[in-house]
Amino acid sequence: MKEIKIGVLPGDYIGPEITKEALKVLNALEKKYDWQFDIVHLEASGEAYDKYGVHLPEETLRKAAECAALLKGPFGGPPEELNHPKWSGVEQGAILPLRKHFNLFTNLRESKVFDSLIHLSPIKKEVVAGIDILIVRELTSGIYFGEKGERTVDGEREYFDVEAYKESEIERIAIKSFEYAQQRRNKVTLVAKSNVLKSSVLWREVVNKVAKDYPGVTLDYMHVDNAAMQLILNPGQFDVILTSNMFGDILSDEASVLLGSIGLLPSASLGESKFGLYEPIHGSAPSIAGQNIANPISSILCIALLLRFSLDKPEQADEVEAAVARALAEGYRTKDLYQEAQDDASKLVGTVEMGDIITSYI
Amino acid sequence: MKEIKIGVLPGDYIGPEITKEALKVLNALEKKYDWQFDIVHLEASGEAYDKYGVHLPEETLRKAAECAALLKGPFGGPPEELNHPKWSGVEQGAILPLRKHFNLFTNLRESKVFDSLIHLSPIKKEVVAGIDILIVRELTSGIYFGEKGERTVDGEREYFDVEAYKESEIERIAIKSFEYAQQRRNKVTLVAKSNVLKSSVLWREVVNKVAKDYPGVTLDYMHVDNAAMQLILNPGQFDVILTSNMFGDILSDEASVLLGSIGLLPSASLGESKFGLYEPIHGSAPSIAGQNIANPISSILCIALLLRFSLDKPEQADEVEAAVARALAEGYRTKDLYQEAQDDASKLVGTVEMGDIITSYI
Ligand SMILES: CC(C)[C@H](C(=O)O)[C@@H](O)C(=O)O
Ligand SMILES: CC(C)[C@H](C(=O)O)[C@@H](O)C(=O)O
Repeated sequence: MKEIKIGVLPGDYIGPEITKEALKVLNALEKKYDWQFDIVHLEASGEAYDKYGVHLPEETLRKAAECAALLKGPFGGPPEELNHPKWSGVEQGAILPLRKHFNLFTNLRESKVFDSLIHLSPIKKEVVAGIDILIVRELTSGIYFGEKGERTVDGEREYFDVEAYKESEIERIAIKSFEYAQQRRNKVTLVAKSNVLKSSVLWREVVNKVAKDYPGVTLDYMHVDNAAMQLILNPGQFDVILTSNMFGDILSDEASVLLGSIGLLPSASLGESKFGLYEPIHGSAPSIAGQNIANPISSILCIALLLRFSLDKPEQADEVEAAVARALAEGYRTKDLYQEAQDDASKLVGTVEMGDIITSYI
Repeated sequence: MKEIKIGVLPGDYIGPEITKEALKVLNALEKKYDWQFDIVHLEASGEAYDKYGVHLPEETLRKAAECAALLKGPFGGPPEELNHPKWSGVEQGAILPLRKHFNLFTNLRESKVFDSLIHLSPIKKEVVAGIDILIVRELTSGIYFGEKGERTVDGEREYFDVEAYKESEIERIAIKSFEYAQQRRNKVTLVAKSNVLKSSVLWREVVNKVAKDYPGVTLDYMHVDNAAMQLILNPGQFDVILTSNMFGDILSDEASVLLGSIGLLPSASLGESKFGLYEPIHGSAPSIAGQNIANPISSILCIALLLRFSLDKPEQADEVEAAVARALAEGYRTKDLYQEAQDDASKLVGTVEMGDIITSYI
């Protein structure tokens, strides 16, 4: 089998720590199945800024383009240093251009509750039990990438951002979401705000049209304010949620609450090809960096998504997810998952130990 | 004492039912304190459409301007009739123009948990106990009122909406939020998305400047995605949340979940004067209309806000809130609040009975 290039952007603070554990898992699979990976280190964010004064060097993009997939750690600095040039430009200088450059218009974030962690959710057990939601977020258009700026109106400063969507941009992601729904429970809920936003009216129109090609899939519509409510009141009603860049940002973070820890959630960003970018949905958590306490599971589950979507290895993807579920079922907990009072049988472990345990189940 | 004009827009479906109960409470106060109210019926939404083919007649605006305050029921039709002209234009034709016409730029939505209903929340008791959050939502600008339309880009249709804020629009609502914080727990959390949106950068800049005039109030900043998460994970950290029109729409609906029923939540919309518009945050609930089962508490609590903000009657506002709390503490429940298994001591009552009971405590 020929070598598969995997680009790794370790990210900042806890980024390199958790990414390292994910690579252990990848390495174990490589040995077990006799695959050949070429792990390519790619400089970006703080690391790149320190060396080159930019957050996303050309060289990184060039090398990334040669890879089958990218594994990314969280980018960003501590809140108290956000005005420092090392950190202030990370989103506009690295995170968003990376998505745009590779045309990764589909962002997938799955909220699935682990039985063994259900007590961690701030939400009652009977409400979250069994939930399994896939949020399909548009990632390369909308107000994130629309025209933005400053102008003078009536003699004072006005700052603006344009939310804009073209038909084709909605259509391609709508198709993806119906395809995912077919592999799941055949339901798509479009979330927008069509009673106020023109762009939402186009979302409804285009998605309704696409739905006609998927007669086996039910299409529902919900206003975003109601969706923010329903996601907590009755999360079990959702299968696939299809939404815009901005609404997807908000709703996917909100949905992560159902699980009780943001340290569990991976995401996949995909375009038209198999190439994908895989990253945890959480930030770089400077306050807990370097202490061997960060939860590597979000990053390890990125490996599962990478196997499934970029490498066409669904069985090994399942294997990684099963290894994670087993470690949790056996009571291993990083600090974010550990509750002294309730968890008599559980064992507090560090970042590295959690990585080792999960790797040992491969 | 001279007559005080109160304009009443009963709204659609359950609107007139719950508004009627709120007016009973107002009537009881009028008698008890020997006030003189002139209750002015104002036609709008479905009612106005049927008669005049418009959702907000000029006459309604003219008469409303002569009132000290407006009590409004929810506007809107059933989901299956949303394309019918009677309902499709309600938001753009009545709800938004009403806010804009009277320059009601400050929308207040309070989430405070009733001890006797804490079991209704989908969120665990220890997480929601004691929460008391005031969301201050900007209501007459932003993407709701920005330029919007349709254009052709690269030969295809693009629909757009502009999120725009002027300095003065941010400044005036920031001042309000700091003033409210001073009467509460001295903390304001600004919610925006300054790592992506230019308009959010202006929010941060202007709010930071306003904060200097309120040295006793702490100002925090949170990105909207994180806020959507924190609101459920740790709602106790919030006192006043200050945010834009769009984010406020989403977050205030989400916050209503903490209470377990959206039927409990009133809102106040205010401008620079005492004049205000008071309305439940929920919709017109066509499916339960006409059955004497809707919860009138949201509308009754609108009376409390109206007394407090428009009529300078803080003691009577407290009295209304105490009457509601007493009815709940004594176990009276409309259907939305009733849980057979858990509520042994509670008594299921209808809309009218709930109104009568609360009125009897005045
Ligand atoms: C860091 C930020 C630009 C980013 C976003 O808003 O997309 C993050 O919140 C996310 O959801 O991946
Ligand atoms: C009906 C709609 C236009 C309105 C809004 O989005 O402002 C409603 O959701 C609200 O929050 O009052």
